[in-house]
Amino acid sequence: MKIRKAILNKAKKIKLLATDVDGVLTDGKIVILNSGEEIKFWDVYDRFAFTLLRNYASYIKIAWITGRTSPQVAARAKEVGVNYLYQKCMDKISAVHDILKKENLTIDEVAFIGDDLIDLPVLSKCGLAFCPKNAPEEVKDAVDYITNGKSGEGIFREAVEIIFKSQGIWKKVLENYRRSIRISKATQNHTEKTQKKIQ
Amino acid sequence: MKIRKAILNKAKKIKLLATDVDGVLTDGKIVILNSGEEIKFWDVYDRFAFTLLRNYASYIKIAWITGRTSPQVAARAKEVGVNYLYQKCMDKISAVHDILKKENLTIDEVAFIGDDLIDLPVLSKCGLAFCPKNAPEEVKDAVDYITNGKSGEGIFREAVEIIFKSQGIWKKVLENYRRSIRISKATQNHTEKTQKKIQ
Amino acid sequence: MKIRKAILNKAKKIKLLATDVDGVLTDGKIVILNSGEEIKFWDVYDRFAFTLLRNYASYIKIAWITGRTSPQVAARAKEVGVNYLYQKCMDKISAVHDILKKENLTIDEVAFIGDDLIDLPVLSKCGLAFCPKNAPEEVKDAVDYITNGKSGEGIFREAVEIIFKSQGIWKKVLENYRRSIRISKATQNHTEKTQKKIQ
Amino acid sequence: MKIRKAILNKAKKIKLLATDVDGVLTDGKIVILNSGEEIKFWDVYDRFAFTLLRNYASYIKIAWITGRTSPQVAARAKEVGVNYLYQKCMDKISAVHDILKKENLTIDEVAFIGDDLIDLPVLSKCGLAFCPKNAPEEVKDAVDYITNGKSGEGIFREAVEIIFKSQGIWKKVLENYRRSIRISKATQNHTEKTQKKIQ
Repeated sequence: MKIRKAILNKAKKIKLLATDVDGVLTDGKIVILNSGEEIKFWDVYDRFAFTLLRNYASYIKIAWITGRTSPQVAARAKEVGVNYLYQKCMDKISAVHDILKKENLTIDEVAFIGDDLIDLPVLSKCGLAFCPKNAPEEVKDAVDYITNGKSGEGIFREAVEIIFKSQGIWKKVLENYRRSIRISKATQNHTEKTQKKIQ
Repeated sequence: MKIRKAILNKAKKIKLLATDVDGVLTDGKIVILNSGEEIKFWDVYDRFAFTLLRNYASYIKIAWITGRTSPQVAARAKEVGVNYLYQKCMDKISAVHDILKKENLTIDEVAFIGDDLIDLPVLSKCGLAFCPKNAPEEVKDAVDYITNGKSGEGIFREAVEIIFKSQGIWKKVLENYRRSIRISKATQNHTEKTQKKIQ
Repeated sequence: MKIRKAILNKAKKIKLLATDVDGVLTDGKIVILNSGEEIKFWDVYDRFAFTLLRNYASYIKIAWITGRTSPQVAARAKEVGVNYLYQKCMDKISAVHDILKKENLTIDEVAFIGDDLIDLPVLSKCGLAFCPKNAPEEVKDAVDYITNGKSGEGIFREAVEIIFKSQGIWKKVLENYRRSIRISKATQNHTEKTQKKIQ
Repeated sequence: MKIRKAILNKAKKIKLLATDVDGVLTDGKIVILNSGEEIKFWDVYDRFAFTLLRNYASYIKIAWITGRTSPQVAARAKEVGVNYLYQKCMDKISAVHDILKKENLTIDEVAFIGDDLIDLPVLSKCGLAFCPKNAPEEVKDAVDYITNGKSGEGIFREAVEIIFKSQGIWKKVLENYRRSIRISKATQNHTEKTQKKIQ
């Protein structure tokens, strides 16, 4: 993945990574059971990207800003370490400004990932804007970077990789994963507990 | 998306947008649990299209006409604001004429989206006919417009966008979404209630 | 869809359409809940093909022959009108001969759809053999016709269409669906019961 | 599928086939119900590959080594005959060495299938390394063979086929499946019990 210099310059400044949920972190399918429970399809590459953010760049805040509401979104946001969650939020730009005030950041320090018209105000104003390759043309026209993946196919991970590369973190990540990472005592014990010979 | 003049002329007249359900609004997969409950996969772009219809073109009536029956279809039809729901309906053209009489409309004011042979009578008679790109050849031959998306991939949204463009509504939609939409007091309160700092 | 003459000549004789289940009628994904319940993904175009078989060619027997066993398979086989169901059957060619004896048919009157090595004995001996385009090379080499669709993407429907075309039934099907099919009194009542104005 | 000589030479030595789970044996989608239950999508071609391993090459040990933990993974590992299961294991190379000691094997007798950065240490050291075609570039650079399939699309099966071909087993498999395999008394009875005429 070759990234244009202009994108890297914008990515260098990012201290808040905000994203829509449905159609970005999920594949945009809506499945509702008779019980009212929703089933959402998340991506394993994105999950790892949240781990990378926590372990290598905890100074970058994470926000999920969605027009809908769902207990599953709240549960997963907590699980992956999201700092700010806005649900049932139609005015996403106000939500972003709200966070900027609390974190003492400026709008060019914000990256946003969105996939539809409702995201246009934020996408056109934030420092670095992403959308999936299946987004409507008007959204594609408004962003800095169209991801290689479609909705729910690791597009959050693509954004994290670009930000990490621009901020000199990606090399460190690769070095650590390329050599056998020493495990702490705690992890070793855990590994022993869960490892077992089946047959 | 460049739309042919002939399509726009037909779309200009539409006052009833009727559609099949399985294979149009869903991806055509059938999943039935042991309990008998069905799982259906809807699309997030289509959902937004229903919101657009309600907010910008409430004079266009919406009908779902399907050969099957399912409590989930009834629940979602209500949720997204469908005006007429026909389930277990094998004679779709009669259903359409039924609505025309009630709404005092003519057949050239009807757009229909269908994906299989059973939809041929309506598709060949209504004012503007759509099918997904994975439909059988005989259905493709009968429609005015084959969508870019496959079953369940936002093809209802494609139809709405064409109708909106032909009726001069799309520009207004984009203008509203491009500028930060002012939120009402009610929405603000709601936003505050659901917004929270997780960590 | 242009079908080779040699295929049509073989298809003309078919009086038994037998098929594997997983990877043919379903997409080959295995989903097992903690309760042990399996979730299978069937196709809406295939379902319609079973209706066509019952309504237009009831002299063609339908058999499902699968190496696995599942209550959902039994339930759906009944629902779509399968004549013979063999589950946990590893010797599919014997199952086919068993049916031939009961129905007084010969092996060249059998069409079979399979997607893996276990289907090779039947595929290489039956009158007309199909596999999905994602099947292993050894299976593709053994069949008469590789479908345009992948596992679970309407490949049973493709087989039915070919058989119907070869036996002169397809034209009749299209004629009936192209003109508004008259509905019976019973269907009309049913339609009225399930039709309703939502708003 | 034409396999390079260098790959076959490496595959010839394999006596332990170890693999990651999410994103290799599954499609990398994460689905978590409100109850906490996870839904995973496995592949029907992979399942058959496990059967082939048990029936034709029981001297090849199978290990699943995953960074996560799930009761479903444990259940399926048992079902398909996995010899070693490591869950919540972050240090996969240590897990592999642990098995090597128990089985008295060397690292060049190990094949590993991984799809992300966490698998890099094992992939770069083991005898034969595989990844799916949707893996990140850094992972693709580290492996001997990039599969034709994506995550969860039979990539374990691809690995088994290559190992079988290199070890002269594949021909035997094909011969057995091409001729009608004689079934044992036990299987015959079972078949009779589950076979039934529906109509």
